Amino acid sequence: MNVFKHLQHQRRELTGRAFDRHLRLGVTGLSGSGKTAFITSLVHQLTQGDQPSNLPFFDVVREQRYLGGRLASQVLAVPRFPLEQNLQYLQQTPPAWPPSTTGWSQLSLQLRYKAASGLRSHLQSHSELALDIIDYPGEWLLDLPMLDMSYAQWCEFSWQLFAKTHRSAAAQPFAQLLQNTDLQDASELHLQQLTDSYKQLLTQFHQTPGAYLNQPGRLLVPGVLSGAPMLQLFPLLPQQAEQPSALATQLEQHYDSYRKHVIKPFYQQHFSALDRQVILVDCLSALNAGYAAITELQQALRLILQSFNYGPSSLLSRLFKPKISKVLFAASKSDHATPEQHKALTLLLQQLLQQPLKNSQYQAATTEAMAIAAIRASSSGFVQADGLAQPCISGTGLDQQALTYFPGDIPPTVPPQEVFEQHKFAFLPLRPLPWNDTQALPHVRMDHVLQFILGDKLR
Amino acid sequence: MNVFKHLQHQRRELTGRAFDRHLRLGVTGLSGSGKTAFITSLVHQLTQGDQPSNLPFFDVVREQRYLGGRLASQVLAVPRFPLEQNLQYLQQTPPAWPPSTTGWSQLSLQLRYKAASGLRSHLQSHSELALDIIDYPGEWLLDLPMLDMSYAQWCEFSWQLFAKTHRSAAAQPFAQLLQNTDLQDASELHLQQLTDSYKQLLTQFHQTPGAYLNQPGRLLVPGVLSGAPMLQLFPLLPQQAEQPSALATQLEQHYDSYRKHVIKPFYQQHFSALDRQVILVDCLSALNAGYAAITELQQALRLILQSFNYGPSSLLSRLFKPKISKVLFAASKSDHATPEQHKALTLLLQQLLQQPLKNSQYQAATTEAMAIAAIRASSSGFVQADGLAQPCISGTGLDQQALTYFPGDIPPTVPPQEVFEQHKFAFLPLRPLPWNDTQALPHVRMDHVLQFILGDKLR
Repeated sequence: MNVFKHLQHQRRELTGRAFDRHLRLGVTGLSGSGKTAFITSLVHQLTQGDQPSNLPFFDVVREQRYLGGRLASQVLAVPRFPLEQNLQYLQQTPPAWPPSTTGWSQLSLQLRYKAASGLRSHLQSHSELALDIIDYPGEWLLDLPMLDMSYAQWCEFSWQLFAKTHRSAAAQPFAQLLQNTDLQDASELHLQQLTDSYKQLLTQFHQTPGAYLNQPGRLLVPGVLSGAPMLQLFPLLPQQAEQPSALATQLEQHYDSYRKHVIKPFYQQHFSALDRQVILVDCLSALNAGYAAITELQQALRLILQSFNYGPSSLLSRLFKPKISKVLFAASKSDHATPEQHKALTLLLQQLLQQPLKNSQYQAATTEAMAIAAIRASSSGFVQADGLAQPCISGTGLDQQALTYFPGDIPPTVPPQEVFEQHKFAFLPLRPLPWNDTQALPHVRMDHVLQFILGDKLR
Repeated sequence: MNVFKHLQHQRRELTGRAFDRHLRLGVTGLSGSGKTAFITSLVHQLTQGDQPSNLPFFDVVREQRYLGGRLASQVLAVPRFPLEQNLQYLQQTPPAWPPSTTGWSQLSLQLRYKAASGLRSHLQSHSELALDIIDYPGEWLLDLPMLDMSYAQWCEFSWQLFAKTHRSAAAQPFAQLLQNTDLQDASELHLQQLTDSYKQLLTQFHQTPGAYLNQPGRLLVPGVLSGAPMLQLFPLLPQQAEQPSALATQLEQHYDSYRKHVIKPFYQQHFSALDRQVILVDCLSALNAGYAAITELQQALRLILQSFNYGPSSLLSRLFKPKISKVLFAASKSDHATPEQHKALTLLLQQLLQQPLKNSQYQAATTEAMAIAAIRASSSGFVQADGLAQPCISGTGLDQQALTYFPGDIPPTVPPQEVFEQHKFAFLPLRPLPWNDTQALPHVRMDHVLQFILGDKLR
C-alpha cells in the first residue's frame, strides 16, 4: 500500500503546482448506488459535454471560460477506472449499464480554463487544474465504527442488527451453529468452519434488498488479504463474547489485527489524501425494499458520516488530520421517478441525513444534498388521463420492454412502518437511454454537481 | 507490502534470539510441481512424524535429541498456509490431493531439541529454532530475467519461445492479430483488447503440458494489481518492437513500470528475507509431455537459477545482497516411478541443472538435488513375470481404479528428440495413499530433505 502513497505523493510533486491546482475527489456509495455510472458521466461531461446547453449551471462552462478537459497520464501501478470500456456498454444495442467495480480505482484529468478575474486572468492565457477521481466501496467506510467498539461491543451491535425483520430468518442457522459450538475449541479448522458459515450469511445479506450494513467490509472481497488469519472473524453471540473462552480470545486478537492492518491503513493512506467527496445514495431501492431497509439505510449513513466528522473528539482525529472540505450527498437514479418528485427525493435524503448532521461537527466541510441521475435512463413527459396532464416517464425495462408510466410519489420524509404495510413502492429498474458518443451523455443535474465540487476551483 | 516486511522484522525481533535461532525457508516450484503437498508433509513430519523409524536420516531425530515441533502463533495479517485443511483432504475417502495455492502464504513453527555438544548442551536443558516456511509461485522467479532485457529484447525472447512446436499453433491467432494491428493506436480500448487476447493465449499455454515459461508472471493472477495500466502488457512482434510507434512507446512504459513496481519489490521485500530455499521440479510430467516440454523445463530452470546466482555481476546484486545459503532442488513425485529408477531421476534433474550450475557462481549457497515424494501415492513391490521379479508400484488412479504396474524407465539424461518420437513416457497421476492422522505421513526421503535444510541448525 505504501507504494501507492508514495506514488500519489510523487505525482502531486510532479504536477509542479501549488496545492490548490490539484484536487483529489473521492467517489463512494454502497454497493448498487451508481458509482460507476457517476464517474463515467462526470468524466464524459468534463471532456466531451462542455456545451452551455448541456451544463447550464456549471459557471465556468456557462461563462464560456472552460477550454476543455482531457485524460491525464496516470500512475501505471494504480488500478485505473475503466472509462472507455464503460462508454462501450452504453453504446451497445440495447444499451447496458457498465459492470460495477470492486476495490478502488483512479482516473486523472487535466482541466483547462480561463480565470474569471484577478491577477491570473491577466497574466496567463489559461489556468489548469489537475483532478484525480478516486473510486472506492462505501462498505469500507462502514468499518470505521469498529475502531470505536471492543470485540464484545461489536458482537452486541451485530446481533442487534441481525434481529431486524429483513435479516432475522437468514441469521437463524448461524445463531444455532454458535449456540452449539465448543467455545474452548479455537483450532484452525473450527475457526475456518465458523468463518465460512459467517461468510455464507454475509453473502445472503449482500443479496437481501436493504441489508446495507455488513461487517467486516473485506470478508467477502479479501483481495491480497486472502488467507490472513485476521479474516477469520465473525461475531459470537453477545453472551458468548462476554465470557472468557479460547474462541473469544482468538477472535478478539483477529478483530484487533483487522482494525490495525486493514481499517487504519485505509484511512491513513487513502482517505487522508482526499480533498472532496461525493457519496451516492440509492433511496428509491431502499423504499422498494421496505421499512426495515430504509431505517437500515439511515443507520448506515449515520455510520458513514462518522468518517466526515472532524470534531476534536472524533475517531478520525486520532488517526490523522482529514482535509476534506466539501461533501456532496447525491440521491442517485432520480430519473426513475418523475421530475416533480425530485424535490421530495432531496428532502427524503436530507431527512435520512438530518439526525447525523446535527450530531456531528463539520468544522471544515461544507455539505450539500441533491437529487441527480448521472446517466439518464428515462425521458419525462405527460399523458392525458381523465382530461388532466399526468406526469410520466418513458424508458426501457431490463427485459427490453418499452414502458411509459407514473412510478409513484416519493415521500419527502421517511414514512412510518404502517405506510409500508399498506403500500408497496415500486420504482422499476431501467436500461440507460440509447446513446452514441457524438452526443453529450444525457443526465440530471450533473452541472449542479460539477458546480458544487469544482466551481470554486475554476474561478 | 511494507506492512509485511515490517511485521517480519518485528517478529524476528520478538523471538528475541540471535539470528541463527530463526530460519526463513522459501518453498517454490512451477505450477503443479507439488508445493502444497511438500509443505503439508514437511510440517507434519516435524510436528507429528518425529520417530526414528520414520525419519532415519534426520540426525536430530535419529540421535533422539529432537523434543518436538509445534505451530507457532503467526502474524495475523499475513496469509497463512492452510495446513489443517490440507490434512483433511488427505483423510477423505477416497483420499484427495489438497488444492494448490495461488500467491504467497506462510506457516511458522517452533522446534525444540537438545544440543549435541558444546556449551549450549551443558548450559541449557533444550534449544529452540523458529522456522518460517514461505510458499510462493515459482512463476514469480521467471520474471527476474525481464530486469535484464529491454522491452524489444523481451519481445524477441517471447516470440522465439512461441515458435516452439508445442506453442506455435496456439500463438498463431495472436501473431495474426498483431500483424494487422494499427501501431499508432495506443488508445485505452485498443491496449485492453490486445491484452485480453494475450491473456487468452497465456491461459491456453498455462493448460498446455510443458509450457512453463509464461511472462509476465502476474498477468493471470493480478491480485491487488488488477486494473493497473502496467498490466496491459504483451510482446509485440519483434520487428514491430524495433520501430518507433505510439503502441511500442506505451508498452515500453508499462514494461518499465511492471519491472519497477512488481518485480523489484518482490525481490527486495520478500525474497531478500529468505535464508534457505527448496525448489520443486516435476520432471516426470515434463517427460510425459515430450521433447519440447523437457527442453522448456530446462530453460525455465536456467532462468529460475538466475535468482540464486550471487556473483558480483548478477542481476540480484544490483538490487540487494541475497543471503540464501542452501538451495535444494527436489524432483517431486518420485513414487510415481519404481524405486530403482530414483537414481536416474536424480541424474536427470542434475543434468537439467548442470548447464546453469556451471555458468553461475554460487558464492555462498550450497546446492543439492534429490528425488523425493512428499506424500506417498504408491507402494512399491515386485511382480513375477517370466520367472523374474519385476519391480512395480501399486496405487489408485484418479478414476479410483486400483493399479499395479511398472511405469517405465526414467532416462538419466535428457533423451534426444528421436526417442520421444518413438516412445511415449506415461507416468500416471495417482491419488495419495489412504491415511489417518494417527500415523506419520508416508513419504520418500523427506528425512534427507530435513537433514539438508535443517540438520546443521539442530546440532
